[in-house]
Amino acid sequence: MNYEERDAYGMYKIASADGAGPDDHHGPGPHLMGADTLIGNDVFNADGEDLGDIKEIMLDMRSGRVSYAVLSFGGFLGMGEKLFAVPWAALKLDTENKRFTLNVNQQQLEGAPGFDKNHWPDMADTTWERRIHAFYGTLPHSDTPSV
Amino acid sequence: MNYEERDAYGMYKIASADGAGPDDHHGPGPHLMGADTLIGNDVFNADGEDLGDIKEIMLDMRSGRVSYAVLSFGGFLGMGEKLFAVPWAALKLDTENKRFTLNVNQQQLEGAPGFDKNHWPDMADTTWERRIHAFYGTLPHSDTPSV
Repeated sequence: MNYEERDAYGMYKIASADGAGPDDHHGPGPHLMGADTLIGNDVFNADGEDLGDIKEIMLDMRSGRVSYAVLSFGGFLGMGEKLFAVPWAALKLDTENKRFTLNVNQQQLEGAPGFDKNHWPDMADTTWERRIHAFYGTLPHSDTPSV
Repeated sequence: MNYEERDAYGMYKIASADGAGPDDHHGPGPHLMGADTLIGNDVFNADGEDLGDIKEIMLDMRSGRVSYAVLSFGGFLGMGEKLFAVPWAALKLDTENKRFTLNVNQQQLEGAPGFDKNHWPDMADTTWERRIHAFYGTLPHSDTPSV
Protein backbone atom coordinates (compact mmCIF):
# COMPACT_ATOMS: atom_id res chain seq x y z
CA MET A 1 0.00 0.00 0.00
CA ASN A 2 1.14 3.51 -0.61
CA TYR A 3 0.16 6.85 0.85
CA GLU A 4 -2.47 7.66 -1.77
CA GLU A 5 -4.27 4.40 -1.08
CA ARG A 6 -4.05 5.03 2.65
CA ASP A 7 -5.53 8.50 2.41
CA ALA A 8 -8.47 8.32 4.83
CA TYR A 9 -8.84 12.09 4.94
CA GLY A 10 -9.00 12.83 1.25
CA MET A 11 -5.87 14.90 0.90
CA TYR A 12 -4.68 13.15 -2.26
CA LYS A 13 -8.13 12.83 -3.74
CA ILE A 14 -8.35 14.31 -7.20
CA ALA A 15 -11.07 16.91 -6.99
CA SER A 16 -13.67 16.91 -9.74
CA ALA A 17 -16.43 18.91 -8.09
CA ASP A 18 -17.54 20.52 -11.34
CA GLY A 19 -18.06 17.16 -13.02
CA ALA A 20 -15.49 18.07 -15.66
CA GLY A 21 -13.09 15.35 -14.60
CA PRO A 22 -10.06 15.47 -12.36
CA ASP A 23 -8.33 18.81 -12.06
CA ASP A 24 -4.64 19.27 -11.35
CA HIS A 25 -5.02 19.75 -7.61
CA HIS A 26 -3.53 16.76 -5.81
CA GLY A 27 -3.74 17.74 -2.19
CA PRO A 28 -1.78 19.85 0.21
CA GLY A 29 1.24 20.30 -2.05
CA PRO A 30 4.33 18.32 -2.96
CA HIS A 31 6.25 19.06 0.23
CA LEU A 32 3.65 18.46 2.89
CA MET A 33 2.70 14.86 3.57
CA GLY A 34 0.33 13.37 6.11
CA ALA A 35 2.00 11.23 8.78
CA ASP A 36 -0.92 8.81 8.83
CA THR A 37 -0.61 8.23 5.09
CA LEU A 38 3.17 7.72 5.32
CA ILE A 39 2.86 5.11 8.06
CA GLY A 40 2.61 1.73 6.35
CA ASN A 41 4.72 2.79 3.38
CA ASP A 42 7.32 0.37 2.07
CA VAL A 43 11.03 1.01 2.34
CA PHE A 44 13.46 -0.15 -0.34
CA ASN A 45 17.07 0.59 -1.09
CA ALA A 46 18.34 1.88 -4.42
CA ASP A 47 19.06 -1.71 -5.54
CA GLY A 48 15.40 -2.61 -5.08
CA GLU A 49 15.86 -4.69 -1.92
CA ASP A 50 12.79 -4.71 0.32
CA LEU A 51 13.70 -3.30 3.76
CA GLY A 52 10.27 -3.56 5.37
CA ASP A 53 7.73 -0.88 6.13
CA ILE A 54 7.18 2.14 8.35
CA LYS A 55 5.20 1.48 11.54
CA GLU A 56 5.49 4.79 13.33
CA ILE A 57 6.93 8.28 12.94
CA MET A 58 8.50 9.80 16.05
CA LEU A 59 8.04 13.51 16.61
CA ASP A 60 10.20 15.63 18.90
CA MET A 61 7.60 17.58 20.86
CA ARG A 62 10.09 20.26 21.97
CA SER A 63 11.55 21.19 18.61
CA GLY A 64 8.62 20.28 16.36
CA ARG A 65 10.92 18.18 14.22
CA VAL A 66 10.49 14.69 12.86
CA SER A 67 13.12 12.57 14.59
CA TYR A 68 12.79 8.96 13.44
CA ALA A 69 10.73 6.60 11.41
CA VAL A 70 10.21 3.22 13.05
CA LEU A 71 10.91 0.56 10.45
CA SER A 72 9.75 -3.03 10.81
CA PHE A 73 11.90 -5.63 9.07
CA GLY A 74 12.00 -9.40 9.22
CA GLY A 75 9.63 -11.83 10.83
CA PHE A 76 6.40 -13.24 9.50
CA LEU A 77 2.86 -12.17 10.37
CA GLY A 78 4.21 -10.00 13.16
CA MET A 79 6.24 -12.82 14.74
CA GLY A 80 9.97 -12.28 14.99
CA GLU A 81 9.79 -8.82 13.50
CA LYS A 82 12.42 -6.36 14.63
CA LEU A 83 11.97 -2.61 14.85
CA PHE A 84 14.56 -0.01 13.87
CA ALA A 85 14.57 3.69 14.61
CA VAL A 86 15.82 5.24 11.39
CA PRO A 87 16.77 8.94 11.45
CA TRP A 88 14.30 10.87 9.33
CA ALA A 89 17.19 12.44 7.39
CA ALA A 90 18.32 8.95 6.25
CA LEU A 91 14.98 8.31 4.49
CA LYS A 92 14.12 9.75 1.12
CA LEU A 93 10.58 9.74 -0.19
CA ASP A 94 10.45 8.22 -3.67
CA THR A 95 7.35 9.96 -5.00
CA GLU A 96 7.48 8.06 -8.29
CA ASN A 97 7.22 4.64 -6.64
CA LYS A 98 5.37 6.03 -3.60
CA ARG A 99 7.74 4.49 -1.09
CA PHE A 100 10.79 5.41 0.96
CA THR A 101 14.39 4.81 -0.06
CA LEU A 102 17.01 3.99 2.57
CA ASN A 103 20.67 3.61 1.72
CA VAL A 104 21.44 0.31 3.50
CA ASN A 105 21.21 -3.30 2.35
CA GLN A 106 19.37 -6.15 4.07
CA GLN A 107 22.56 -7.56 5.57
CA GLN A 108 23.50 -4.20 7.10
CA LEU A 109 19.99 -3.80 8.45
CA GLU A 110 20.20 -7.18 10.15
CA GLY A 111 23.19 -5.82 12.07
CA ALA A 112 21.60 -2.44 12.78
CA PRO A 113 20.69 -1.37 16.33
CA GLY A 114 17.09 -2.46 16.77
CA PHE A 115 14.53 -3.43 19.38
CA ASP A 116 11.37 -5.44 19.78
CA LYS A 117 7.98 -3.82 20.19
CA ASN A 118 7.73 -4.52 23.90
CA HIS A 119 11.09 -2.99 24.71
CA TRP A 120 11.43 0.45 23.25
CA PRO A 121 14.74 2.24 23.82
CA ASP A 122 14.97 5.45 25.78
CA MET A 123 15.27 7.78 22.80
CA ALA A 124 16.27 10.70 25.04
CA ASP A 125 19.53 8.87 25.82
CA THR A 126 22.23 10.73 23.88
CA THR A 127 24.46 7.62 23.77
CA TRP A 128 21.64 5.74 22.01
CA GLU A 129 21.02 8.74 19.74
CA ARG A 130 24.67 9.00 18.69
CA ARG A 131 24.87 5.26 18.00
CA ILE A 132 21.82 5.39 15.74
CA HIS A 133 23.00 8.43 13.81
CA ALA A 134 26.54 7.01 13.47
CA PHE A 135 25.06 3.85 11.92
CA TYR A 136 23.04 5.71 9.29
CA GLY A 137 25.57 8.52 8.77
CA THR A 138 23.25 11.31 9.85
CA LEU A 139 23.67 14.20 12.25
CA PRO A 140 22.00 13.96 15.69
CA HIS A 141 19.58 16.83 16.34
CA SER A 142 21.48 17.64 19.50
CA ASP A 143 24.54 18.40 17.33
CA THR A 144 22.58 20.66 15.01
CA PRO A 145 23.51 24.29 15.62
CA SER A 146 20.69 26.35 17.09
CA VAL A 147 19.68 29.72 15.69
CA MET B 1 -9.12 7.67 23.17
CA ASN B 2 -5.69 8.87 24.07
CA TYR B 3 -2.26 8.04 22.76
CA GLU B 4 -1.53 5.29 25.25
CA GLU B 5 -4.71 3.46 24.27
CA ARG B 6 -3.88 3.92 20.61
CA ASP B 7 -0.39 2.50 20.99
CA ALA B 8 -0.36 -0.31 18.39
CA TYR B 9 3.41 -0.61 18.49
CA GLY B 10 3.96 -0.94 22.20
CA MET B 11 5.92 2.21 22.83
CA TYR B 12 3.99 3.19 25.95
CA LYS B 13 3.70 -0.34 27.23
CA ILE B 14 4.98 -0.74 30.76
CA ALA B 15 7.71 -3.34 30.54
CA SER B 16 7.68 -6.08 33.17
CA ALA B 17 9.86 -8.67 31.49
CA ASP B 18 11.33 -9.89 34.77
CA GLY B 19 7.90 -10.61 36.23
CA ALA B 20 8.54 -8.15 39.04
CA GLY B 21 5.79 -5.81 37.93
CA PRO B 22 5.93 -2.67 35.86
CA ASP B 23 9.21 -0.83 35.84
CA ASP B 24 9.61 2.90 35.35
CA HIS B 25 10.28 2.72 31.64
CA HIS B 26 7.36 4.21 29.76
CA GLY B 27 8.55 4.21 26.19
CA PRO B 28 10.71 6.36 24.02
CA GLY B 29 10.95 9.26 26.45
CA PRO B 30 8.86 12.26 27.41
CA HIS B 31 9.74 14.37 24.37
CA LEU B 32 9.35 11.88 21.55
CA MET B 33 5.82 10.89 20.64
CA GLY B 34 4.53 8.64 17.90
CA ALA B 35 2.51 10.41 15.19
CA ASP B 36 0.17 7.44 14.86
CA THR B 37 -0.62 7.52 18.56
CA LEU B 38 -1.22 11.30 18.51
CA ILE B 39 -3.67 11.08 15.62
CA GLY B 40 -7.12 10.66 17.14
CA ASN B 41 -6.27 12.64 20.26
CA ASP B 42 -8.82 15.09 21.58
CA VAL B 43 -8.27 18.83 21.55
CA PHE B 44 -9.63 21.08 24.29
CA ASN B 45 -9.03 24.66 25.29
CA ALA B 46 -7.94 25.76 28.75
CA ASP B 47 -11.60 26.35 29.71
CA GLY B 48 -12.38 22.70 29.00
CA GLU B 49 -14.30 23.30 25.76
CA ASP B 50 -14.13 20.36 23.36
CA LEU B 51 -12.56 21.48 20.06
CA GLY B 52 -12.64 18.14 18.24
CA ASP B 53 -9.86 15.71 17.49
CA ILE B 54 -6.71 15.34 15.40
CA LYS B 55 -7.17 13.53 12.08
CA GLU B 56 -3.77 14.00 10.49
CA ILE B 57 -0.35 15.49 11.14
CA MET B 58 1.30 17.26 8.22
CA LEU B 59 5.05 16.91 7.84
CA ASP B 60 7.22 19.25 5.78
CA MET B 61 9.34 16.80 3.81
CA ARG B 62 12.01 19.39 2.96
CA SER B 63 12.72 20.69 6.44
CA GLY B 64 11.77 17.62 8.48
CA ARG B 65 9.50 19.77 10.63
CA VAL B 66 5.95 19.17 11.76
CA SER B 67 3.86 21.85 10.07
CA TYR B 68 0.22 21.39 11.01
CA ALA B 69 -2.20 19.16 12.79
CA VAL B 70 -5.47 18.66 10.96
CA LEU B 71 -8.28 19.15 13.43
CA SER B 72 -11.82 17.94 12.82
CA PHE B 73 -14.56 19.93 14.53
CA GLY B 74 -18.32 19.96 14.19
CA GLY B 75 -20.60 17.63 12.30
CA PHE B 76 -21.99 14.32 13.38
CA LEU B 77 -20.80 10.83 12.35
CA GLY B 78 -18.52 12.42 9.77
CA MET B 79 -21.32 14.47 8.17
CA GLY B 80 -20.85 18.23 8.16
CA GLU B 81 -17.48 18.02 9.84
CA LYS B 82 -15.02 20.74 9.00
CA LEU B 83 -11.25 20.39 8.94
CA PHE B 84 -8.78 22.97 10.20
CA ALA B 85 -5.03 23.11 9.67
CA VAL B 86 -3.68 24.21 13.02
CA PRO B 87 -0.01 25.24 13.22
CA TRP B 88 1.87 22.70 15.30
CA ALA B 89 3.27 25.50 17.47
CA ALA B 90 -0.30 26.49 18.48
CA LEU B 91 -0.95 23.07 20.02
CA LYS B 92 0.32 22.05 23.42
CA LEU B 93 0.33 18.44 24.53
CA ASP B 94 -1.38 18.07 27.91
CA THR B 95 0.37 14.95 29.15
CA GLU B 96 -1.70 14.85 32.33
CA ASN B 97 -5.03 14.61 30.49
CA LYS B 98 -3.43 12.97 27.44
CA ARG B 99 -4.89 15.43 24.98
CA PHE B 100 -3.93 18.61 23.17
CA THR B 101 -4.68 22.14 24.33
CA LEU B 102 -5.43 24.88 21.81
CA ASN B 103 -5.95 28.46 22.85
CA VAL B 104 -9.17 29.27 20.93
CA ASN B 105 -12.82 28.90 21.87
CA GLN B 106 -15.52 27.08 19.92
CA GLN B 107 -16.94 30.31 18.52
CA GLN B 108 -13.53 31.42 17.23
CA LEU B 109 -12.97 28.00 15.70
CA GLU B 110 -16.27 28.22 13.83
CA GLY B 111 -14.88 31.36 12.16
CA ALA B 112 -11.42 29.89 11.55
CA PRO B 113 -10.15 29.21 8.02
CA GLY B 114 -11.13 25.59 7.33
CA PHE B 115 -11.90 23.18 4.53
CA ASP B 116 -13.80 20.00 3.84
CA LYS B 117 -12.06 16.68 3.33
CA ASN B 118 -12.58 16.63 -0.42
CA HIS B 119 -11.09 20.08 -0.96
CA TRP B 120 -7.72 20.40 0.70
CA PRO B 121 -6.01 23.78 0.40
CA ASP B 122 -2.70 24.19 -1.37
CA MET B 123 -0.54 24.37 1.75
CA ALA B 124 2.46 25.56 -0.26
CA ASP B 125 0.59 28.81 -0.97
CA THR B 126 2.28 31.44 1.22
CA THR B 127 -0.88 33.59 1.29
CA TRP B 128 -2.77 30.64 2.78
CA GLU B 129 0.11 29.94 5.17
CA ARG B 130 0.21 33.54 6.43
CA ARG B 131 -3.55 33.62 6.92
CA ILE B 132 -3.48 30.45 9.02
CA HIS B 133 -0.57 31.59 11.17
CA ALA B 134 -2.09 35.07 11.64
CA PHE B 135 -5.29 33.44 12.93
CA TYR B 136 -3.51 31.32 15.54
CA GLY B 137 -0.81 33.88 16.36
CA THR B 138 2.09 31.67 15.30
CA LEU B 139 5.09 32.30 13.07
CA PRO B 140 5.07 30.84 9.54
CA HIS B 141 8.05 28.53 8.94
CA SER B 142 8.98 30.62 5.93
CA ASP B 143 9.52 33.56 8.32
CA THR B 144 11.69 31.53 10.65
CA PRO B 145 15.33 32.58 10.31
CA SER B 146 17.56 29.92 8.81
CA VAL B 147 20.84 28.90 10.37
